[in-house]
Amino acid sequence: MEFHFLGTGSGVPAIERNVSALALRFLQQKGTQWLFDCGEATQHQLLHSPITLTKIDRIFITHLHGDHIFGLPGLLGSRSFQGARSPLTIYGPKGLATFIDASLTVSRTHLRYPYKVIEVEEGLVLETEDVLVYALELEHVMPCFAFKITEKDKPGKLDMGRLQSLNIPKGPIYQRIKEGKTVELEDGSKVNGKDFVGPPQKGRMIVIAGDTRPIKKMVDFSRGANVLVHEATFRGDKQEHAAQFGHSTIEEATALAKEAQVKTLILTHISSRYSGEEEEFELEAKHYFSNVHIAHDMMVYKLST
Amino acid sequence: MEFHFLGTGSGVPAIERNVSALALRFLQQKGTQWLFDCGEATQHQLLHSPITLTKIDRIFITHLHGDHIFGLPGLLGSRSFQGARSPLTIYGPKGLATFIDASLTVSRTHLRYPYKVIEVEEGLVLETEDVLVYALELEHVMPCFAFKITEKDKPGKLDMGRLQSLNIPKGPIYQRIKEGKTVELEDGSKVNGKDFVGPPQKGRMIVIAGDTRPIKKMVDFSRGANVLVHEATFRGDKQEHAAQFGHSTIEEATALAKEAQVKTLILTHISSRYSGEEEEFELEAKHYFSNVHIAHDMMVYKLST
Repeated sequence: MEFHFLGTGSGVPAIERNVSALALRFLQQKGTQWLFDCGEATQHQLLHSPITLTKIDRIFITHLHGDHIFGLPGLLGSRSFQGARSPLTIYGPKGLATFIDASLTVSRTHLRYPYKVIEVEEGLVLETEDVLVYALELEHVMPCFAFKITEKDKPGKLDMGRLQSLNIPKGPIYQRIKEGKTVELEDGSKVNGKDFVGPPQKGRMIVIAGDTRPIKKMVDFSRGANVLVHEATFRGDKQEHAAQFGHSTIEEATALAKEAQVKTLILTHISSRYSGEEEEFELEAKHYFSNVHIAHDMMVYKLST
Repeated sequence: MEFHFLGTGSGVPAIERNVSALALRFLQQKGTQWLFDCGEATQHQLLHSPITLTKIDRIFITHLHGDHIFGLPGLLGSRSFQGARSPLTIYGPKGLATFIDASLTVSRTHLRYPYKVIEVEEGLVLETEDVLVYALELEHVMPCFAFKITEKDKPGKLDMGRLQSLNIPKGPIYQRIKEGKTVELEDGSKVNGKDFVGPPQKGRMIVIAGDTRPIKKMVDFSRGANVLVHEATFRGDKQEHAAQFGHSTIEEATALAKEAQVKTLILTHISSRYSGEEEEFELEAKHYFSNVHIAHDMMVYKLST
């Protein structure tokens, strides 16, 4: 699983940090690509990344502030122009469909692929063959969500070497053995699938949060996450300001990650006032939580299996 | 007068050329700055230019295709965020107000400056102390305008040296002399203002056109223009394709400029298919019209007085 940070700033674009967008590439699921938030010029950032716009098939929008959605109409149009004909589903808060409709209608943008907009509420948002996606409502100055992606556990790996050393011929029988069934071979002998299958592979869990004050229920929602992507718009000295505008400080975000026993925390949505203070920003974060990364535009974080 | 080309591509952003936007700086009018079209990431381009977003006080939109308007909501928001409190007026085709309203409303973008949207028709759009702005409807696949900016002629310069050599004391009298009036001095003698004022300064005229097939009435509209900014989305071999999609070729745009006896032609809105063929593109244009420039992103063209 790869996290491609396309925009890591807050509010308005700056030369160093564009407004919010994060692409997620699922390496084990045929390279499926999803996008989280789509600030203005997200499609421009994609031109400099290995993510292919036409292959993004789901977009999740945390909330409707301009720095999270103003890149959406252009990106939808360009996906069509670049030849995509595969379906696209866009998830986000109530009001998202109106914005997309108004933008595409007035500009007479005709998408040549089917798309649908799903306005989400708290709870299960999506289930695919491989993952479950849940939404949690955060505490911002407008409705805003965090999305949790939970990989389904996978059956253990089949011990191919051992099967072949017993001269069990390849074929549909392997699938039944993998399912742990007892199978009769051609010579009448029986093998128990369970003896040839390793332990189940535990699915991973990641959480990508939108803009928010630090809230208690995020601790439960992201408990034990392999990766939590959380905002830290401000450093600790701006706590009152952060609270007023529905944001978190470094101290608050790291405290939340610690309490939730998150394995890796990635901080993003960083105010442009800290331009040139990247080192101090990171030091402050590491002071509270050792396994933390400060996202920057075009940063790629790889989560190993 | 300075032309700052911020986006010179067509349809979708490319690494070499962003989508449409052109800033105009009036050097003799207190540095007034206007913007023509506002494709996605126009505000990002401004970050790399000497144009100050907060000082732009008028925006003209030629038509409502995404590559000409999708940067508008973000730019309006950033203008407020950056501290602008001065009024802004936005001119463009019918439907523009709906798009702006929908975008600002859904994103809860509160602008801290007064703004109004004026949906224009052919004819006089604006008169200021210094200029007149006219709109002409073009021929595109949706309503689209060209804008002509005509500077008002200015009275000739007052010959200060000569007035002072005649010991005519400075004061309100100078204004009356400048207006060409006959004025009685304190010693009873009379001077004729006309003797102290040079010839009137002829105003310049420029035309900035949106996407269009080449049309006859543009010849009259831009006759004798000091500068015509016209699209040339395609080279000559794509004439049918250009006509089908409401665009012009190099050959067509240069022929129009020639017939209209335009002094300088600047071609823009160039298809990304010609990336890497800039030299051939320019050669083709110069073959038909010698005083032509091919716009590129961040190009600055200065029109001398």
